[in-house]
Amino acid sequence: MAADHTTLPSTMTAIGIKTPGGPDVLQPETRPVPRPGAGEILVHIAAAGVNRPDVIQRLGAYPAPPGASDIPGLELAGDVIAIGPGASRFKVGDQVCALVAGGGYAQYATVHESNALPVPAGLGLTEAAALPETFFTVWTNVFERGGLKAGETLLIHGGTSGIGTTAIMLAKALGAKVIATAGSDDKCAACRDLGADIAVNYRTEDFVAAAKAATNGQGAEVILDMVGGDYIQRNYDAAAVDGRIVQIAFLNGAKATVDFTRLMLKRLTHTGSTLRARPVEAKAAIARALEADVWPLLAAGRIKPVIHATFPLAEANRAHALMESSAHVGKIVLTVAA
Amino acid sequence: MAADHTTLPSTMTAIGIKTPGGPDVLQPETRPVPRPGAGEILVHIAAAGVNRPDVIQRLGAYPAPPGASDIPGLELAGDVIAIGPGASRFKVGDQVCALVAGGGYAQYATVHESNALPVPAGLGLTEAAALPETFFTVWTNVFERGGLKAGETLLIHGGTSGIGTTAIMLAKALGAKVIATAGSDDKCAACRDLGADIAVNYRTEDFVAAAKAATNGQGAEVILDMVGGDYIQRNYDAAAVDGRIVQIAFLNGAKATVDFTRLMLKRLTHTGSTLRARPVEAKAAIARALEADVWPLLAAGRIKPVIHATFPLAEANRAHALMESSAHVGKIVLTVAA
Repeated sequence: MAADHTTLPSTMTAIGIKTPGGPDVLQPETRPVPRPGAGEILVHIAAAGVNRPDVIQRLGAYPAPPGASDIPGLELAGDVIAIGPGASRFKVGDQVCALVAGGGYAQYATVHESNALPVPAGLGLTEAAALPETFFTVWTNVFERGGLKAGETLLIHGGTSGIGTTAIMLAKALGAKVIATAGSDDKCAACRDLGADIAVNYRTEDFVAAAKAATNGQGAEVILDMVGGDYIQRNYDAAAVDGRIVQIAFLNGAKATVDFTRLMLKRLTHTGSTLRARPVEAKAAIARALEADVWPLLAAGRIKPVIHATFPLAEANRAHALMESSAHVGKIVLTVAA
Repeated sequence: MAADHTTLPSTMTAIGIKTPGGPDVLQPETRPVPRPGAGEILVHIAAAGVNRPDVIQRLGAYPAPPGASDIPGLELAGDVIAIGPGASRFKVGDQVCALVAGGGYAQYATVHESNALPVPAGLGLTEAAALPETFFTVWTNVFERGGLKAGETLLIHGGTSGIGTTAIMLAKALGAKVIATAGSDDKCAACRDLGADIAVNYRTEDFVAAAKAATNGQGAEVILDMVGGDYIQRNYDAAAVDGRIVQIAFLNGAKATVDFTRLMLKRLTHTGSTLRARPVEAKAAIARALEADVWPLLAAGRIKPVIHATFPLAEANRAHALMESSAHVGKIVLTVAA
């Protein structure tokens, strides 16, 4: 498996976006194998996670940030196959998973060593590829930005998404009470199976009333929201005094007419963040926190990634069609042939 | 000046709100002199500050919180004239200023000793009565909630209000850069006289462009806003990455149509608070922080309250008319005859 630069192949298969459009614009292409720069490692990819931002990128609405590969894919796992100048955390042959700003849908990708983590003991590379995007996102938004503490209540919208399943497990493992919303009774059952104390079918129930009922009328201390739109006002209603609402996407739109009275009277904090555009150093800090506080939970089997389906790299279009159907519970992963 | 309970008068003059309405519904009434309960002191009032919430209360839209006096007035200064059971921080004859949840427009008021502070050295009782509401508000919102640090930029809306003048002075004294908005060139000059680095006449200039121009395009790290309405979107535009926007009122309304994209992409924190309804313990913690960090600045003359006008207690109606005209710069204070 180990190799030095002289034996690396010059080309690889990767998934390109020929033009913005539906899932079928994702097609295999031949690309040059990237070479690791300063502080980087080259990973021979075994599996790559699929994420909602990849879909938005494919639609043309979320271009790769400056300096990032135009190949989609924000997370991957595989073997370290070459080491760039000054990189010292890993050696050739190590198995890693990593967050990248693009380039995951390919046979090889360069990764800044600080944004890579060892594969947790007991997990395979497919499972490891399902970790970075959701674990980095949940950790920094729910625990760092939202400051969720043991004994508090977390309301999670989109409980069966990759982010949602990770948030349910992590919040429960760290001692919080969890209320999750999902779009069907089956999905609600899946949320409860993952540990959610309360699951709310948002098509038939009002999550504000459910959150109040589950907290003696107090509301949720932290809300993780990727929906936006009319959820914003309802989040203000569902939040506890001194509650924190963390916005990580706007699946129902970013524009809303809102009465901010409750934000002031309840001393709410409405904040949010996106991961992809953050500098390598910020992601490295999250990686170190995850390695210290969360990787031991994975190694101990207390939490594990929920993988709904895998597809071969060449069938990335099918993976996207599944994600857009919202029929999945947990992660969708692409497997990459050597 | 000292007195014990047996020599206290049984009645006093206070300003009542007969019925919601214009300034002239504020009329002197005879009321019983309150007696200090556990942990309370009775203050013989020399002066009482007038604040915007008093106007809203007079209009019937901001009732006194449970347990608070229905007499308006949120701050006062005077002599301690009696001590309730268990109160030990002050003795009869001490001069104090204090935050109260109501009752300031009167000859006497009870105050929880933890919400009182000594009159800063060098200040008279009229000046001291102008301190609590704005200093508690600015400290907890700008420095605690907003986390303003030396070297950062604070954008203050309503720069010539009592809150605004206090925020300008305090932020400058603690090493921040200050941009203030106000409604006339004269008021802008007053903001600059108080130390604002930049003053923006919001009737003729765009504060978003001005805030960007003053910060090399970065925006303000903290924004203190009592305007709301269409300022909310513009605050999101004017804020720096990782900026904090603290909402303390909604003079232009609490409802707005907002695009929250920038809140997420810039990792903004939109929060807010109101002081009056907070428990005595929360106000006590602010009082202790002020005594430690701000009272020395007042005693040293580095900052001082800005008093625009004083009126005798019986002319509270004129004080309110002035506040509603927004012609004032700084505080309006009622003086109380012994």
